[in-house]
Amino acid sequence: MVQIAVMGYGVVGSGVVEVLMKNANSISHKAGKRIEIRRILDLRSFPESPLADRFTDNFEDIVNDPEIQIVVETIGGLKPAYDFVKRCLLAGKSVVTSNKELVAAKGDELLAIARERNLNFLFEASVGGGIPILRPLDQCLAANEVYEIAGILNGTTNFVLTKMIREGLPFDRALELAQRLGYAERNPSDDIDGHDACRKICILASLAFGKHVYPEQVHTEGIGLLTLDDVKYASEWGGVIKLIGRARKREDGRLECIVAPMILSRESQLAEVNDVFNGILVRGDAIGDVVFYGQGAGKLPTASAVVADIIDEVKHIGARKFLSWEPGENGYVADYRGYSGSVMLRLKCKDVQAVHRSIENMLGACSRVCVAQAPPDELALVTPAVEERLIDEALASLSDAALVSRLRIANL
Amino acid sequence: MVQIAVMGYGVVGSGVVEVLMKNANSISHKAGKRIEIRRILDLRSFPESPLADRFTDNFEDIVNDPEIQIVVETIGGLKPAYDFVKRCLLAGKSVVTSNKELVAAKGDELLAIARERNLNFLFEASVGGGIPILRPLDQCLAANEVYEIAGILNGTTNFVLTKMIREGLPFDRALELAQRLGYAERNPSDDIDGHDACRKICILASLAFGKHVYPEQVHTEGIGLLTLDDVKYASEWGGVIKLIGRARKREDGRLECIVAPMILSRESQLAEVNDVFNGILVRGDAIGDVVFYGQGAGKLPTASAVVADIIDEVKHIGARKFLSWEPGENGYVADYRGYSGSVMLRLKCKDVQAVHRSIENMLGACSRVCVAQAPPDELALVTPAVEERLIDEALASLSDAALVSRLRIANL
Repeated sequence: MVQIAVMGYGVVGSGVVEVLMKNANSISHKAGKRIEIRRILDLRSFPESPLADRFTDNFEDIVNDPEIQIVVETIGGLKPAYDFVKRCLLAGKSVVTSNKELVAAKGDELLAIARERNLNFLFEASVGGGIPILRPLDQCLAANEVYEIAGILNGTTNFVLTKMIREGLPFDRALELAQRLGYAERNPSDDIDGHDACRKICILASLAFGKHVYPEQVHTEGIGLLTLDDVKYASEWGGVIKLIGRARKREDGRLECIVAPMILSRESQLAEVNDVFNGILVRGDAIGDVVFYGQGAGKLPTASAVVADIIDEVKHIGARKFLSWEPGENGYVADYRGYSGSVMLRLKCKDVQAVHRSIENMLGACSRVCVAQAPPDELALVTPAVEERLIDEALASLSDAALVSRLRIANL
Repeated sequence: MVQIAVMGYGVVGSGVVEVLMKNANSISHKAGKRIEIRRILDLRSFPESPLADRFTDNFEDIVNDPEIQIVVETIGGLKPAYDFVKRCLLAGKSVVTSNKELVAAKGDELLAIARERNLNFLFEASVGGGIPILRPLDQCLAANEVYEIAGILNGTTNFVLTKMIREGLPFDRALELAQRLGYAERNPSDDIDGHDACRKICILASLAFGKHVYPEQVHTEGIGLLTLDDVKYASEWGGVIKLIGRARKREDGRLECIVAPMILSRESQLAEVNDVFNGILVRGDAIGDVVFYGQGAGKLPTASAVVADIIDEVKHIGARKFLSWEPGENGYVADYRGYSGSVMLRLKCKDVQAVHRSIENMLGACSRVCVAQAPPDELALVTPAVEERLIDEALASLSDAALVSRLRIANL
């Protein structure tokens, strides 16, 4: 028998308890031992729960209990989760978490503490919800030089974009619908502004390339400014707009890492990832392209990833797992203005032909995208692959044109 | 340092050697030890190879060499692979294989020998080529009750179907093209007739549901009889034809397991798996739908899965891995005539209305599918979900209609 504690009885935490109880027999068979939930930390009490007597609002009941070998953290956020997790590891308990904010900000430090104490710090649920991705990525990494990872990492924004693309709902109404259906928070900034996707690409990049990537190193744009006109132009070009997190290794050993809405060709495997689903693409030298697809959030999918980590930990108590990386450093992630790629520029200008010519003089041949009933002063161009700073310079030099939107075209 | 042998220097075997040599540094870093290729078994000699001195045509040089701890089997087929693998395990060597025919036919026996001797018998590469699927499935299984697995498991047939659907090539010409491009063998029966997909669904079903499913228990249909008319009717209905291998658990504990061309709705995540790619869908009670996508065959993708197994084995020499299942039994796979589902029937008949009515009298309301320029004596109907034996009976009772084709509609 192994005693565990669950910290945080919100959506994910209560899901973990539910899965552990519902599939108790097959889980103990797989783990080789029975798993007993000894404590549940929450400020609220749940007198109706069959586990009502296990609830506590005092973290000390968990960290000081020598019977508890594994602590599950599903509180979310940095405070108090960071302190609690750190103290649990220092007290000799392995930790399983679904908290992407914590792993993205403090993963290197917590992994180092776990490593020193021969404990595990596991977080499969922090990326892609229930989709097994971190272990398979580790497996891809074993025999491959993985050089790029990219994905649709946030279900809320993907739902909003799907409604804009498929049903022509404007952004605000699509977001309202997501909120009504419980897919978006009342304050949706974490999702809409790209922060959630940023944390996830940080975790994937850290694991894939071996050094911590911190969220503040990653240029991050959200989807809040997208309009149905953007959707229409993307469609005319042959693509769809998705919020993409992407990391790739450069030949100089530094990383390119960015989160932004991008236009994907309809042929891309990620183009068909719709609604609240996530899709993650891994590119390796031997394996080619591999895609993992599933529900990236939600109570039970996320809980099932947490429980898989718990089972893995129970099977290997005292043995170190694979997941690890080094601390990051300044300059490890290259300035995004040096990343190269095609961009769709949309401009308002009186003399469309002249602006088209001056952009081509600066950036090389561009293809023009025209949609039906576009105003005559609108110009949409797809540039060749050039560094972002050159596009900045070209736009700054135009005196008689106003930028409406600028969308990267992702070669995925 | 760990000494290994590679048996069979064909496409996959030479790929394994290539990956081990090309990524030697990162591989030894990950495995924690250097991996040395001590012997390569092949009837041919390769005097130009940098490893020319390691080649042997005598299996005894491998099985009797106490320095060799891991043997990689990439010969394929049952003879002599089965004898060789069994003798290696009995001699105390762990085995890694890409040989789906071997695992599908003899997996239970070889796993039992490995289990008794505290060795591993690993075969990630036998399903889905380079796509990590067996370990992630095991992870899905840990916390979920997985109740269905289905996939596009054969790249050759998927290439042929993609060419029929997208470019309107008739079957024969699409197959010729696949042969010219090296995607199909000169004798393509293993792929075209569904045997290869059958072996793979046997392996997936054995792992997912815990008992061996043997290929001869699985009703298997190939794609050799499909025509462009079938493609057209499927498209009119809103779908595409794919060769699907599917296994699901019934409430009585028995399995439904089948390989056949099926019509998938265009909304299915598997519908967009094209060309030589594979896609595998896993359905669990907590996780929902998860899909794994990538190159299901090819030298380097398959080799990278073999190498991932080798690394895993090197890291865990003397420790047993998860993969295992019990022997199968008669009656464990239910007779396919008892499986329920919708079917698209296409018939030639003089009195289309009368035949439509008699089928509906027997099976319930059917929807008719009409394509442009269809001959007036052609009737295509989509039945409600009924047992296959009822459809057999209904067709047998029609005196004035000839069956042209019968395609299952997969709810995936």
